[in-house]
Amino acid sequence: MKYREAGVDISRAEDALARIRDRVRATKRPEVIGDIGAFGGLFRLTGTDTVLVATTDGVGTKLELARLLDRHEGVGTDLVHHCVNDALAMGAEPLFFLDYFSTATLDPEVFARVVGAMADACRAQGCALLGGETAEMPGMYAPGAYDLAGFLVGGVARDRILDPAAVREGDVLIGLPSSGLHTNGYSLARAIVAKRAHADEREERAVLDAPRPELRGGTLGDALLATHRCYLAEVRSLRAAATVRSIAHLTGGGWEGNLPRALPIALGAVVDRDSWIVPPLFRMLVEWGGVAENEAFDTWNMGIGLVVAIAATDERAALRALPDAIRIGMVERARPDMPRVRWA
Amino acid sequence: MKYREAGVDISRAEDALARIRDRVRATKRPEVIGDIGAFGGLFRLTGTDTVLVATTDGVGTKLELARLLDRHEGVGTDLVHHCVNDALAMGAEPLFFLDYFSTATLDPEVFARVVGAMADACRAQGCALLGGETAEMPGMYAPGAYDLAGFLVGGVARDRILDPAAVREGDVLIGLPSSGLHTNGYSLARAIVAKRAHADEREERAVLDAPRPELRGGTLGDALLATHRCYLAEVRSLRAAATVRSIAHLTGGGWEGNLPRALPIALGAVVDRDSWIVPPLFRMLVEWGGVAENEAFDTWNMGIGLVVAIAATDERAALRALPDAIRIGMVERARPDMPRVRWA
Repeated sequence: MKYREAGVDISRAEDALARIRDRVRATKRPEVIGDIGAFGGLFRLTGTDTVLVATTDGVGTKLELARLLDRHEGVGTDLVHHCVNDALAMGAEPLFFLDYFSTATLDPEVFARVVGAMADACRAQGCALLGGETAEMPGMYAPGAYDLAGFLVGGVARDRILDPAAVREGDVLIGLPSSGLHTNGYSLARAIVAKRAHADEREERAVLDAPRPELRGGTLGDALLATHRCYLAEVRSLRAAATVRSIAHLTGGGWEGNLPRALPIALGAVVDRDSWIVPPLFRMLVEWGGVAENEAFDTWNMGIGLVVAIAATDERAALRALPDAIRIGMVERARPDMPRVRWA
Repeated sequence: MKYREAGVDISRAEDALARIRDRVRATKRPEVIGDIGAFGGLFRLTGTDTVLVATTDGVGTKLELARLLDRHEGVGTDLVHHCVNDALAMGAEPLFFLDYFSTATLDPEVFARVVGAMADACRAQGCALLGGETAEMPGMYAPGAYDLAGFLVGGVARDRILDPAAVREGDVLIGLPSSGLHTNGYSLARAIVAKRAHADEREERAVLDAPRPELRGGTLGDALLATHRCYLAEVRSLRAAATVRSIAHLTGGGWEGNLPRALPIALGAVVDRDSWIVPPLFRMLVEWGGVAENEAFDTWNMGIGLVVAIAATDERAALRALPDAIRIGMVERARPDMPRVRWA
């Protein structure tokens, strides 16, 4: 199976964005640093050394899974962590967060579970939940369905911004384990579950709720709804111990869609797939769906949620600072007309 | 007809918010000024005099109307103007904007029309379009449907923040005309159109496309899709000419839902309904829907999009600065257990 067959085609989004790029560029103010396409937008406030980093995200169709299993808390936390990690990739610490919750008919109990968890996640990451919008749109959503968007503003001193231009050939790539799919590739995962349920002549719910020996007795539902890991504490430790050159948050588009965003155009990455063990959740999905390996790595994080480029001389210090970090590869020169991530 | 019967019940949103208020309050950081419930959240950045104002909004089911009439540009502009006005109500000028666009299957042409118009509106208001998220969620939306959320950060010098606490008994209320429903009360408006179409045994589209003498030969579709008016230039002129005490942006919840947000708890407003002419669009909807007058004023802006409280001595200067502004009433003491807006 392919992500495209599950109804998601990243090239459509790229096409859409290309059509308006010039009109978006025309909105640039002198305070804006850099161009479209980074993990967050940068805005230097006049009269201060602080640069604001703004980012927006959704949870995607993980929402549908949360609804099916009546487990709404996780998606609120997911959204905050996703946004915090995007800000981290620019070097920023979270300042404040706003949410948009939209549904056909508001169920105050579900809302309170989702947004309450969001508030708790904000608090845990030291981020103010500064506002939100709750929209009731009769007829726009299926009964019980809701959509969720998050907006986060972080701050970073100008000389602490992480800029891919700082990355050098020979830099070492450190990977931090993910807790699961985080918030990407759920349409494909759900299509695989549906296919399996159909083949087994069972309900999807039964497939999701069955204990699996491959998952150490856990269920697929639990594994799929695992909370998006937040890397704030890890990145703080890492920046205290080593010179971090750049950070890639592996989200929609997987490895090839995200790792190059943290590299200058002339450089690529060589990554050793054997440097970490792909978690059983991903192996199950790949096997059940007959997903080609490259397709899997272009859709899911495959067990690594954050990749950090550091100076090679800092490797020992970095690995000492982060107990579960793994050296996964190196930065090398990009080869013309080839993917920027080379698997070794 | 009532707004509630059209599927939107504002008390549900209030109930939902009440359930999480304490958990949201617990996220407060020292930089946060004020409490939940303002038109925008305030965040004072350390080391600067500038206070950030953050606000988030959607367009509601005006989206469905735009889709029915294949007129997608307006909703992008609406969203930017809605957010800019909310920031204005706190005294802030827009700095940057981000958008969230979510749909089942992305149509790059529709996306470009919506978000392109959004970019143009940002440019016109001097606001950077700093980022966005485009989500494809197969199965979550009806074919062709999309949802839209906007997020705006503005800035204001600390001593220029508009604080309802500054409002005094006897202050004059100035109203600025709206261009139509702006972005609120569309579920009720659409239910009224559907009822009329049913009674006339015609398609909704035909009802929306028919020229109407009451609308000077214009169509109901045009009147309903009129762009949310942006008051940035007007508020700049007004603040240069007069001491603005506070501003209410009349959005979801109409007059009673918004005007009190710009007043201290002990004060109310007395508003003369004859001080302006309710535009024909609202009169048509009220008549067709058999909507009670109070219900109409609690749902729609009824022709006034922004209400500004100014010192009584500034009335002449304010009205001179704004050619289409109208004196609509005054600030008075609130009466116990009565609505804060008293109609005269």
